[in-house]
Amino acid sequence: MIGIVGGSGDFGRGLAARLERAGEEVLLGSRTPRDDLVANEEACRRGDVVFLSVPPVGVEEMARALAPLLVDTIVVSVAAPIVFRDGQPAAAPGELSLAELAARGAPDARVVAGFHTVSAKGLARADEPLQEDVLLAGDDDEAKAEVARLAELVVEGRAVDCGRLEVARWLEPLTAVILNVNRRYRANAGVVVTGLGE
Amino acid sequence: MIGIVGGSGDFGRGLAARLERAGEEVLLGSRTPRDDLVANEEACRRGDVVFLSVPPVGVEEMARALAPLLVDTIVVSVAAPIVFRDGQPAAAPGELSLAELAARGAPDARVVAGFHTVSAKGLARADEPLQEDVLLAGDDDEAKAEVARLAELVVEGRAVDCGRLEVARWLEPLTAVILNVNRRYRANAGVVVTGLGE
Repeated sequence: MIGIVGGSGDFGRGLAARLERAGEEVLLGSRTPRDDLVANEEACRRGDVVFLSVPPVGVEEMARALAPLLVDTIVVSVAAPIVFRDGQPAAAPGELSLAELAARGAPDARVVAGFHTVSAKGLARADEPLQEDVLLAGDDDEAKAEVARLAELVVEGRAVDCGRLEVARWLEPLTAVILNVNRRYRANAGVVVTGLGE
Repeated sequence: MIGIVGGSGDFGRGLAARLERAGEEVLLGSRTPRDDLVANEEACRRGDVVFLSVPPVGVEEMARALAPLLVDTIVVSVAAPIVFRDGQPAAAPGELSLAELAARGAPDARVVAGFHTVSAKGLARADEPLQEDVLLAGDDDEAKAEVARLAELVVEGRAVDCGRLEVARWLEPLTAVILNVNRRYRANAGVVVTGLGE
């Protein structure tokens, strides 16, 4: 079972639609459960893998609040430190990545960072295949492998292992680059890593 | 004429070989001119476009020293704030990007940031085509277009306009991600931006 905390937005719904089509079971969590949305707590309790799809300012607090439900759970941190300045997308990264803050908030979770280059809008167009890779970072290789498996159900490209969780510090701001590209090209850009061989 | 400041390394030599093959004239600059290397000053004086291929700690100082020779010149900042911690590639970005520091050092230059995802080793293997894009950021659209033209002589992919120079803050650390990918896959990885249409 896959849980998605903060699952009511484009990212969560698009991810869920694509994973379900590939045969996975998904629970969409929300602070305000209604219709097909369960409580975030339930998504965590029942999820073997839990995506943390919450705004950047809320990541650590949310992880801390849910920590007792996330012991030994694989937690995927997809947030990026995006801010808008004069209407333009920018990043305001702190010393630690949001994924590291999630790990600090939920120290017994197995945190993997990823999906920062996958556009929520692109994900939500669940009938269009995503011609792109998913970039992952994390310290738990087994957790990373499971997230890689899920990622490759979602995109046509592959899951690229970018190394330890710390690498999320330099991966997360890439979302700001992509958002600026989207703005310029009126696109839902993604990223493919080339040169890795077969 | 294209000048390359700090042109004696893999990046400079690989770039020069690829540009010359495409019919461009290139001057490789060095602090210690010898053989085919001219002085950095000469590379700046004669270059219409000057690549600043110097270590990150030296970017602003070098730009300041060369500033009188770079008035109205298109300057390409390719440096990334890479450091090695415990032997592992990491980034230590400051508040401003290195490209913005170059612009501060040489305020009359037309600074474009780019090529951060192009591996120096890959560039140096001048017989192997580079199946990747070049990501650019800058405030001067005309300068950016000229650097885009050169970039598309060097790679098989395209030059992707990532927006204003400030975006270099989030683009430059991507080099640390790529270096970690290279380490993990024993590769010379590059990046392609997908979803932009034709």
